[in-house]
Amino acid sequence: MKAILIICDGMADRPLKELRWRTPLEATKKPAMNRLARLGVSGIMDTISPGVPPGSDTAHLALLGYDPYKTYRGRGAFEAVGAGLDVKPGDVAFRFNFASMNEDMVVIDRRAGRIGGDEAARLAKSLETVCSNYSGVQVICKHTVEHRGALLLRGEGLSPEVSDSDPEEEGGKLRRVEPLRDTPEARRTAEILNDLSLSIYKALKNHPVNEERAQRGLHPANVILLRGAGTLPQITPISQLYGIKAACIVPSALVRGVAISAGMKALPLPPCADGTTGTDAKAKAKVAVENLRDYDFILIHVKGADNASHDGNLRQKQVMIRKIEGMVGFLLREVNLRDTYIALTADHATPITVRGHAGDPVPVTIAGPEVVKDGLTGYSERHCAKGGLGRIRGLDLMPILMNLLGMTRKFGA
Amino acid sequence: MKAILIICDGMADRPLKELRWRTPLEATKKPAMNRLARLGVSGIMDTISPGVPPGSDTAHLALLGYDPYKTYRGRGAFEAVGAGLDVKPGDVAFRFNFASMNEDMVVIDRRAGRIGGDEAARLAKSLETVCSNYSGVQVICKHTVEHRGALLLRGEGLSPEVSDSDPEEEGGKLRRVEPLRDTPEARRTAEILNDLSLSIYKALKNHPVNEERAQRGLHPANVILLRGAGTLPQITPISQLYGIKAACIVPSALVRGVAISAGMKALPLPPCADGTTGTDAKAKAKVAVENLRDYDFILIHVKGADNASHDGNLRQKQVMIRKIEGMVGFLLREVNLRDTYIALTADHATPITVRGHAGDPVPVTIAGPEVVKDGLTGYSERHCAKGGLGRIRGLDLMPILMNLLGMTRKFGA
Repeated sequence: MKAILIICDGMADRPLKELRWRTPLEATKKPAMNRLARLGVSGIMDTISPGVPPGSDTAHLALLGYDPYKTYRGRGAFEAVGAGLDVKPGDVAFRFNFASMNEDMVVIDRRAGRIGGDEAARLAKSLETVCSNYSGVQVICKHTVEHRGALLLRGEGLSPEVSDSDPEEEGGKLRRVEPLRDTPEARRTAEILNDLSLSIYKALKNHPVNEERAQRGLHPANVILLRGAGTLPQITPISQLYGIKAACIVPSALVRGVAISAGMKALPLPPCADGTTGTDAKAKAKVAVENLRDYDFILIHVKGADNASHDGNLRQKQVMIRKIEGMVGFLLREVNLRDTYIALTADHATPITVRGHAGDPVPVTIAGPEVVKDGLTGYSERHCAKGGLGRIRGLDLMPILMNLLGMTRKFGA
Repeated sequence: MKAILIICDGMADRPLKELRWRTPLEATKKPAMNRLARLGVSGIMDTISPGVPPGSDTAHLALLGYDPYKTYRGRGAFEAVGAGLDVKPGDVAFRFNFASMNEDMVVIDRRAGRIGGDEAARLAKSLETVCSNYSGVQVICKHTVEHRGALLLRGEGLSPEVSDSDPEEEGGKLRRVEPLRDTPEARRTAEILNDLSLSIYKALKNHPVNEERAQRGLHPANVILLRGAGTLPQITPISQLYGIKAACIVPSALVRGVAISAGMKALPLPPCADGTTGTDAKAKAKVAVENLRDYDFILIHVKGADNASHDGNLRQKQVMIRKIEGMVGFLLREVNLRDTYIALTADHATPITVRGHAGDPVPVTIAGPEVVKDGLTGYSERHCAKGGLGRIRGLDLMPILMNLLGMTRKFGA
C-alpha cells in the first residue's frame, strides 16, 4: 500500500458574492476532484485547532503528524533547510525578502516588485562576500524563489529570540532588530543583524542588477528584510515513526524545509514547478507516479492558490484550482486505487476576502482501496462538511493515512 | 464585523414521551430560529467535554474561550463579581441561598419559597450589620436575584478549601462547614463561617420580613446556605486576547460574573430582564442592537429555560423557548447579517427528565456574511447534529467566531 498526499496551499475559501455565494472550489469545474470525493471518504479538518489561522510551517508540521505547539521553533530554520542549507542544531536562521528601500530607510516595496529568480540569484551571490564571516559568526545566505531567500548565522553565543527587521507594511522604516529577551546572546545576535543589514544595503544599492533595474524604471532590490528567526526543532523522522520511505515534491522552500526536517526525501522538481501560479502541477504528479515504486508515501505541495488569495486575485485562484484539477485527473488515470491512497486537502484557508490565512476548517478527501466511502458527490468546503470523516484535526491526518497503509503501531496489548 | 452570541441556559433537552419523542425545541414553533439555521452553519457542541455535565460557570468560561480545567477556582467569586462586589485577589467568595430552616436546624425549603427580590434585599441589608467585621475578617454580603446572593470574606489567612453549608436537599440539616485540607487557613475559614451562619440565623429568624411571611403562611427566610467557595482566576481579558470591545447582557449574577471577569462590560439590563421565566427576552435583544455600534461582540444570556427544567416544568420551558424565538426574530429583523454574525446556542442541556444539568451536546448555529451555509432547515438538537460545523467543543466557539471577525492571530508564519 502506498499513499500520495496533495496539499494545496490556501485553497480553501469562503462563499463569495461574485460567485453567487459559492466558494472558488464550488464555482470551478472540477470533475476529477469530485470523482475523488465519490471514490473516497471526506471531512473537514482544523489544521491546528478550530479558528486558529495556521502559518504554512505550523500547518505542515501538524499535517505531517507533529504537534506544532510542542515542536515549532520559528520559521527561519525550515526556510533555510528548504533552501538546501545544511542547518545544524544551534544555528539561527531567517527567511528574507529582497525589498526596495529609499534613502530615508523607508521600505517602498516589500518584494522589490516580486523580483525574478535570475536577478535575485545574482544579488544573493554577491552577498556571499559581504556575509561570509561576520564578527566571528559565519553568515550563510541563499536565494530560494522569486524575492525570497534564507540567511543563517552559525557560531557560539547566538539566540533566535530577536525581532524582525521587516516593517511588515510598505511605507514603514526598516526596523532595528531588537533582542526579545534580555540575554547577552539575544543582544549580540540583534547587534550582528543590524550591522549586517547596513552592510548588505551598501553592497546592493549600486549593484549592477539594480543599475539595470533603474534603467528599466524598476525599484531596486537594495535591502533584505529579515523575518522569523528560528532554530531547528528536534523531531523524530517519519521513516522512524511509521517505518515507511517518504518523499516530497515541494517547490516552496519553507514547506520543503518542514518536509525535509521530518525526514522526507526532497525529489527533484520538474521545470516550471516553481511554486508560483505559473507552476506546472501535472508535471509534479508525474514525478510522484514515477517515484511510487521507490517510496511508500509522497507529498505533493501546490503553492499557487495561496499566492492568488493573498493578492485578492479570484481569477488566478480559479486558474490554480483548474491546475490542481488537472493533477488529480492525471493521478486518477495513472495511479491504481486498488493499492494506492490519494488524499487531497489544503493546509489552511486563504479567503479572497481576507487576503491572508484564516482559521476556517479545510476540506479533506481520502480515496483508496479500503476507505468507507460516504457517498459525497463533490469536493468542496460545503460537501466535505457532510463527509464520513467528520471534523478532524491536522494532527490526525498522518495517523489516519498510516493506519490505512497498515503502518501504525498498536497501543496496548 | 460584529457578533452577537445568544446563550440560552439549559435550553437543550432530550426527546420526551409527552412530546411524541420530540425535544422541547423540536416541539415548539420557532420559524425565526429555523431561519437562523437556514442562513447559517450549525453543529453540536460539547461545552466542556462529551458526557460531562457543565456548571453554568465552567460552561461560560469555556464558551468565552477559557479552559475551565485550567482556570476554574470555584463558583463563589464569579457570583460575587456578578453581584457587583469588587472581588480582589485572595478574597474567598460564596454564593448563597436564602432558605427556610426549622428549630432542629433542618432545612425545609432550600429557596425559602423562591423568596422575591424585595424581601430578599431587605434581609440582605440587615445582614450588613451582622457581617461587617467578623473576627478580624471583613465580611461583605449582597443580594442578587430571587433567593440568591453573594458573600465574601476578605482578610489574612483565609482559604477557599472549605465545604458548603448547603445540605443540597430539603430535609437535611444545615451542614457544618469543614476544612477540605488540613491547613490553618482552611480550619480558620471554616470556623468563621460556622459562627457567622449562626449569627445570621439569629439575626434573621425574628426579622420583620419573616414575621410578615409567617402571617401570610409562608416559610421564613431565616438562614443562608453557603456554596461554592471560590477565588478569582487569573485570566487574560477577551479585549486583550482578540483586540475587540466586548459587552454582555446577563441577568444571572453568576454568568455575569464570569463575563465581567473575562473583561466584558456589563450593559445595564432592561426592566423585566431579570433572569427568571418572567424575563423580557426581546428587551435584551434591543439593548444588544443599540450597543452594536460601540461593541464588537455582545453576549446575551437567557436564563429561564434552565429554571423551568430544574422544576420539571415543560410548559414553562416551551414558554421560554418562544421568548427566545421572539428575540431571534427581533434580531433577524434589526441586525444586518452582511456585517454581523449571530450565534445561538445553549450552555448545557437541562433535560426535563433529569431536572439538572446533563453532559449532552448542545445545538449551535452561526449565521452571518461569510459562513459556509450547510442547508439545514431547522434549529434543534437533531437538526444541528447534521450541520456543517460538525461536533465542536465549547472552547472552540470563541476562536471560530473571532476567526470570522478576523480577530484571531496566526500561529506560525
